[in-house]
Amino acid sequence: MTERLVVIGGDAAGMTAAATARRRVPADQLDVVAFEQGNYTSYSACGIPYLIGGLVPDVDALIARGPDEHRRRGVDARTGHQVLAIDTDRRRVLVRPSADGSESWEAFDQLVIATGSTPRRPALPGVDAAGIFGVQTLDDGLAVRAASDADDARHAVVVGGGYVGLELGEALVRRGLSVALVEAAPQPMSTLDPEMGALVADALRSVGVEVYVGERVEGFDTDDGQVTGVQTAARVLPADLVILGLGVEPNSGLARDAGIPVGESGGIAVDDHVRAGIDGIYAAGDCSESFHRVSRRPVVAALGTHANKQGRVAGINITGGDAVFPGVLGTAASKICKYEVARTGLNEREAAAAGFDAVAVSIDATTRAGYYPGAAPIRVRVVAERGTGRLLGAQIVGEEGAAKRVDVLAAAIWNDMTVDEVASMDLSYAPPFAPVWDPTLMAARRAAAALG
Amino acid sequence: MTERLVVIGGDAAGMTAAATARRRVPADQLDVVAFEQGNYTSYSACGIPYLIGGLVPDVDALIARGPDEHRRRGVDARTGHQVLAIDTDRRRVLVRPSADGSESWEAFDQLVIATGSTPRRPALPGVDAAGIFGVQTLDDGLAVRAASDADDARHAVVVGGGYVGLELGEALVRRGLSVALVEAAPQPMSTLDPEMGALVADALRSVGVEVYVGERVEGFDTDDGQVTGVQTAARVLPADLVILGLGVEPNSGLARDAGIPVGESGGIAVDDHVRAGIDGIYAAGDCSESFHRVSRRPVVAALGTHANKQGRVAGINITGGDAVFPGVLGTAASKICKYEVARTGLNEREAAAAGFDAVAVSIDATTRAGYYPGAAPIRVRVVAERGTGRLLGAQIVGEEGAAKRVDVLAAAIWNDMTVDEVASMDLSYAPPFAPVWDPTLMAARRAAAALG
Repeated sequence: MTERLVVIGGDAAGMTAAATARRRVPADQLDVVAFEQGNYTSYSACGIPYLIGGLVPDVDALIARGPDEHRRRGVDARTGHQVLAIDTDRRRVLVRPSADGSESWEAFDQLVIATGSTPRRPALPGVDAAGIFGVQTLDDGLAVRAASDADDARHAVVVGGGYVGLELGEALVRRGLSVALVEAAPQPMSTLDPEMGALVADALRSVGVEVYVGERVEGFDTDDGQVTGVQTAARVLPADLVILGLGVEPNSGLARDAGIPVGESGGIAVDDHVRAGIDGIYAAGDCSESFHRVSRRPVVAALGTHANKQGRVAGINITGGDAVFPGVLGTAASKICKYEVARTGLNEREAAAAGFDAVAVSIDATTRAGYYPGAAPIRVRVVAERGTGRLLGAQIVGEEGAAKRVDVLAAAIWNDMTVDEVASMDLSYAPPFAPVWDPTLMAARRAAAALG
Repeated sequence: MTERLVVIGGDAAGMTAAATARRRVPADQLDVVAFEQGNYTSYSACGIPYLIGGLVPDVDALIARGPDEHRRRGVDARTGHQVLAIDTDRRRVLVRPSADGSESWEAFDQLVIATGSTPRRPALPGVDAAGIFGVQTLDDGLAVRAASDADDARHAVVVGGGYVGLELGEALVRRGLSVALVEAAPQPMSTLDPEMGALVADALRSVGVEVYVGERVEGFDTDDGQVTGVQTAARVLPADLVILGLGVEPNSGLARDAGIPVGESGGIAVDDHVRAGIDGIYAAGDCSESFHRVSRRPVVAALGTHANKQGRVAGINITGGDAVFPGVLGTAASKICKYEVARTGLNEREAAAAGFDAVAVSIDATTRAGYYPGAAPIRVRVVAERGTGRLLGAQIVGEEGAAKRVDVLAAAIWNDMTVDEVASMDLSYAPPFAPVWDPTLMAARRAAAALG
């Protein structure tokens, strides 16, 4: 008998699950159908800032696999189809195509919930005005690009210093707008410790972004339903365009309404096989929780890397395999103007919140041997546990060649290494690539010394 | 009572040991004296090719700390002083200053042997002619630079495809010479599997190097004691200048003559505290053996990174500390023309020799997201053990941003991870830095699939 896999959500997690299942089981044994409310499937949401900034000229470049291609490969991908409800008892979902507004129930044997996340919209006066954008989907990105192209678009304001907002702010500078950033915290990028965030603020200023830190947005001026300004306690910033960079919320409401357990983080609760608590129902990507391997707590880690891996795990497990998603470290990277920025594990604040007695140290070094052309500044900060010496987290800000170094520290954290052990590791060296003590090793060594 | 630490060898290992000991114990408790037969201390031997190629204009840039600076910091650094013998019973070394040829015994309480290594010179007709250079010390490098500047210097031949020879070959192309490479193996860089070495050969050809592989050098033509050609079975290559790129031999003769144990690898045998078998005598750097963490065998791993770490371990242990050098993975990196080249762990041949039943797979990817400007080719090859799935080794050849990725695989090997575990790791991603599946993860995933 042919079974039916239904996937809700057509981007990284959902379509990876669909494609993985499709590859593993022939079509006469498994139908695979995917419902996507937007117009695109399997695209790089992380590439949107480069589309807006013009580094990527064409939207097609961001699309790894469109709906036609999915269909050619045996996945019935239906864009413009919103799923309104999940009926776990009768194992069916209620679907509404945007084309005609009709609704119908579609049966499933297995279900993958991959509904993604939505940018946070603060409950402030005027927040629903036109011109205020959260950017999560490719459709969102195209809307921002169009708005920034309007003849009278001059001033953009980014509200909140998360990495997506900062990348978009830089993109809008490239597009010729004047850009201001308003961040309630003392520094942008609160996933970093403040001294690292300060470097990011400097980089933003160096390309002309006005950076207002320690200021909370209190509302939006509007004119005829269109945003015209952003209010803080200290000023009103003119705004033809506002980007909300306050992070995202998992789209777990559909699951919650269906009685599928949602965790304290707000994401759909899953086990290490990405099973969502009801037999045959899986959740993957931004809408679901991940186990944080350092804090040992479930978190929502809304990143394309996890979405791809979790989707793959779902696709394997749905089709009789046994794959595990072993958790996350909170590794992330971003390019902000001249700086590459990366982090993994816990920062100082997060380490304290997770109950660790931690010490943090920073070192300044160069990306190449100091005498080699192109040697550029890099700062590495590591967080380690007192007593055990265990590496808990790391942050890197530096010029070209800086960010990817975080991976070796991520691998070290993954394996519960101490900073002393890290400092002994056999890493690659040649003058074009590193000083003889790689900056990551220097930082680990410094932390080991600080711990005694 | 003031004790006396004598260090033989004034580069990375020796001077790191000296400086570390100096920092930890005041001068009224410990004299530190270092004998160096050459003219320089604490320099970057790895930077020599860039000095010859002109990327680094000034020899001073390669010197981290000259003898005067060492003396200011309380280390009695004596350049131009050769140590002729070690008397372990009476705890003294026989020293000859090059200035006057006098010899004298110098007492020690602790001794660090850091005599480095010497490029292999094959026993072939004409090998001792002028113009045939092994390049290990800064003095060697300056000699090559001078020879390449001679008015009649037109043709250079690199004998052997090790990374130092290839870097020097590229440097001589930059200096305007025509360069040929002769390598007995089917591909240069025998530390890589052949398909990776073939990429390196392509890169060399692309800058005009004539590459002759599968040809063994049989002798050297000379004229009045000066090399004029390199003979192989197939041809005679004109040569005003020859670089020996056949690897190095540890300078362990001084130790061996003194009855200090030398291992099968030819390096001075040390334990994990870099103690050389006789109380108070340590060995560090290229002259000593290291424990290879994958093959579980002692090896000579002649690299600046190890020299620095081992010197530090010696300096700590000499002064009452307890530091360990936990071994090597054979990690190495080099820039060869357009390619960054890196490796860690065992290649296929080495894995077989170490008794592993191994499988190797390669993937081709890009250094950045495919749509991001500057995305460049990268090939990653991983070697894994059948049955256990353990990652045994990795090799990377690619354009800018490729080489340093080997570090995360080195960290994985260090921690005995399986390729399946590696593929699950939480590594950084952003379009300017990587595809959503980093090439290292792709390769691990492919290997996991190949292992079933």
